[in-house]
Amino acid sequence: MLNENIILRSITSRFCQPAYQCNKVLESDAEIIKIDPFRFLAITTDNIVEELSTGLYHDPYHIGWMTVVVNLSDLAAVGAKPLGLVLNQTFPAGLDEEIIDSVQKGIQEAAYKHDTYILGGDTNNSKVWNMGATAIGILENDNLINRKGAAVSDLIYTTGKAGAGNVFAFNFFFQKQKETYFSPEAKLKEGAFIREWASSCIDTSDGLIPAFCNIMELNNCGVDLTIPVEKIVCTTAIDLAEKSKIPNWIFMAGPHGDYELLFTIRSDKSSDFEEEAKKHGFDFSLIGKCSEGNELSFTSGSYRYKLDPFHISNEFSQCNNNPQLYFESLLQIDQKWKM
Amino acid sequence: MLNENIILRSITSRFCQPAYQCNKVLESDAEIIKIDPFRFLAITTDNIVEELSTGLYHDPYHIGWMTVVVNLSDLAAVGAKPLGLVLNQTFPAGLDEEIIDSVQKGIQEAAYKHDTYILGGDTNNSKVWNMGATAIGILENDNLINRKGAAVSDLIYTTGKAGAGNVFAFNFFFQKQKETYFSPEAKLKEGAFIREWASSCIDTSDGLIPAFCNIMELNNCGVDLTIPVEKIVCTTAIDLAEKSKIPNWIFMAGPHGDYELLFTIRSDKSSDFEEEAKKHGFDFSLIGKCSEGNELSFTSGSYRYKLDPFHISNEFSQCNNNPQLYFESLLQIDQKWKM
Repeated sequence: MLNENIILRSITSRFCQPAYQCNKVLESDAEIIKIDPFRFLAITTDNIVEELSTGLYHDPYHIGWMTVVVNLSDLAAVGAKPLGLVLNQTFPAGLDEEIIDSVQKGIQEAAYKHDTYILGGDTNNSKVWNMGATAIGILENDNLINRKGAAVSDLIYTTGKAGAGNVFAFNFFFQKQKETYFSPEAKLKEGAFIREWASSCIDTSDGLIPAFCNIMELNNCGVDLTIPVEKIVCTTAIDLAEKSKIPNWIFMAGPHGDYELLFTIRSDKSSDFEEEAKKHGFDFSLIGKCSEGNELSFTSGSYRYKLDPFHISNEFSQCNNNPQLYFESLLQIDQKWKM
Repeated sequence: MLNENIILRSITSRFCQPAYQCNKVLESDAEIIKIDPFRFLAITTDNIVEELSTGLYHDPYHIGWMTVVVNLSDLAAVGAKPLGLVLNQTFPAGLDEEIIDSVQKGIQEAAYKHDTYILGGDTNNSKVWNMGATAIGILENDNLINRKGAAVSDLIYTTGKAGAGNVFAFNFFFQKQKETYFSPEAKLKEGAFIREWASSCIDTSDGLIPAFCNIMELNNCGVDLTIPVEKIVCTTAIDLAEKSKIPNWIFMAGPHGDYELLFTIRSDKSSDFEEEAKKHGFDFSLIGKCSEGNELSFTSGSYRYKLDPFHISNEFSQCNNNPQLYFESLLQIDQKWKM
C-alpha cells in the first residue's frame, strides 16, 4: 500500500460521507457529488507546499500557473468540465507587490487557457508561502469514472509521455538549473472524452509509477508495460538518462508528475475506442495491460524489470522527501530489480 | 474604504468572471454560481492562519471546529444549504498523531453539528501549521442575497449579540487566559430564512464594525445604531469592559468576529418579517438603521459616538495586526470620538 494512502485513511477515518457522494476516500482524483439524477459536481483541492519550500517552483508566474493546473488536472481525471476555482493564497508578509502580481498573471492565464475562471478566494500572510485552490466542475451525464474499475486484461493508455516533470526536478536539484520550467496543461478535453470509454482513470500528478500504484491498490491487479520504457518516457528524459548514465525508468518514478492521464480500457472496446479517439484528434498511447498479481514489469534497453512499485513510491517518504537520498535509493533499486 | 478590500481589489483585478457568476468581487460572503434557471451553487474558502500563528487557536479540537465554522458561516450569509467541505490541512512535520486526530474530531463534530459532510481534502507538511477549507452549498430558488442591496432607511438586524469573539481574544492576549475558548456555530438555518426577506446580509466573522464597513462601502450609506451598545454587545463583554475600565464599544470592533449574521430589511417589510421570524422561533435583534452619509453613530452609557468605522477597522492593519498596539489605538480613538 502507498504510505500516503495509509496516512490519508487514518486522517479521514472519522469522517462520514453523504449518500449523494459517489466515490469513497482515495477512489477518485475529485470528489463526485450527485445534484440531479443525471448531473454531478466534481470538487477537488490541491495545495503547492513542498514545491515552494524547496524552491523547485520559484518563478512567480509559474507558481500561479501550477496552482491552477494541479487542480484542473484532477477534474480532467474524472472528465468534468470546470466551472471555476477559488484560491487560497498565503504570502510571506512584505512580499513584493510585483511578485504577487506575476503570480496572479500566471493564475489568470492558466484559467483562461483552460477556458475557466477564478471565482474568488482567500488571501493571508504567514511566514511561509503557500498556494492552493479548489476547483469545481460539472458532469452532465452519469458515465462516471474514477480510479476504481480496472480489471485484469484491461489495456492501459496514457494521454502523453512521462518524465518531463521529473526532468524538471532533476535539473533543479542535481544540475542547479533554475532557467527552464515545466508548464503542463490539464488534460480536460481528453478527460471528457476518456470518461465515455474508460474503466478507470487517474492523473499522473505524482509521477507515473505512483499512479500505477493507486490503480493496482484499488483494483487488485498488476501492471505489465508492453512497450519499452524508451517509448513511454519523453525523449528529453531518455537523452538525460543516457547523458547522466542513469536508468531511464527513474523518470517514471516520483515525485514530480506530468499531469497526463493514465486510464484503462476493456480489451474488447479498445479498437472502437482507438478509432473514435483518432477521429477526435487524440493521440493516446497504449502502454500496457493490467496483469494478475501485484508487480510492475517493463523493459528498458536489454533489461526486463519486475518490481514492487509500492516500494519505489514509498521510498520518497522513507527518505524524508529528500530528492538526493531518494535518487540514490532508486539507483540501488535498479541494481536489485533488473533481470 | 477597507484596506483589506483595496488589497483584494488589486489582487483580483486581473481575473475575469464568468457570465454565470451572480456576484462581483467583495459583494458576497460566498461566490454564487448559476447552474440552472432556479438553482445556484455557493462556494467559499477561508483559511485559519493568524489565529494559529499567534496561538489564539491552540486547542486541536477547537482548531478543527473553527476550520469548518468559518467556512459554513459564509454559506449562512448567503442562505445556502451546505453540500459539504473539502479541507486543506498543512501540519508541521512531526506533529503528534493524537493532535492531528483531535483536529479531525473537531472537524467531524462541527460538520455533523451543522448537518453536513467532509467530502475530501488535501494534507501537506510545512514549517507552519495552516488550516483551510472550501465549503460548497446549494440555493434552490433565485432569492439571492449578498452584501449589496441595502438602502438608506433599511432596518439593521443581527442574529445574536456581538463581542464574544473579542472577549475570547482579549482574554488570550491581555489576560493570558488559555482555558476558555469560543466555539460558535454557523447561522445556517437563520441565513436560509433571512434570504427570503433581507436586502443585504453579511456574517460578522471579522467583527461587527468591519461588517458595518462592508455594508456601508458597497451600499453607500451610514449606520445609525438605535439601541445602546449595552444591548448590542453580550453581557460577558459588558462585564469585562466595566471590570477592565475600557469602553464597551471596543468589543464591536475587530479583529475577532462572532459569526453572527448582520442583515438589512426594508422598513415596510419589517413587521411582517419580525412576525414570521417569531413563528419560526428566531430571536433576531433590531439594532439600527441605514443612514445618509458615511458615519457610524451609537450610544454607549451617557456618550453619543459619531465615528468613522473605516478608521477603526483599518487601524488593525496599520498596527501590523498587533493586538496590543491596536487596543491602545482604540482607546485613543475613544477619547477623540466620544461626544
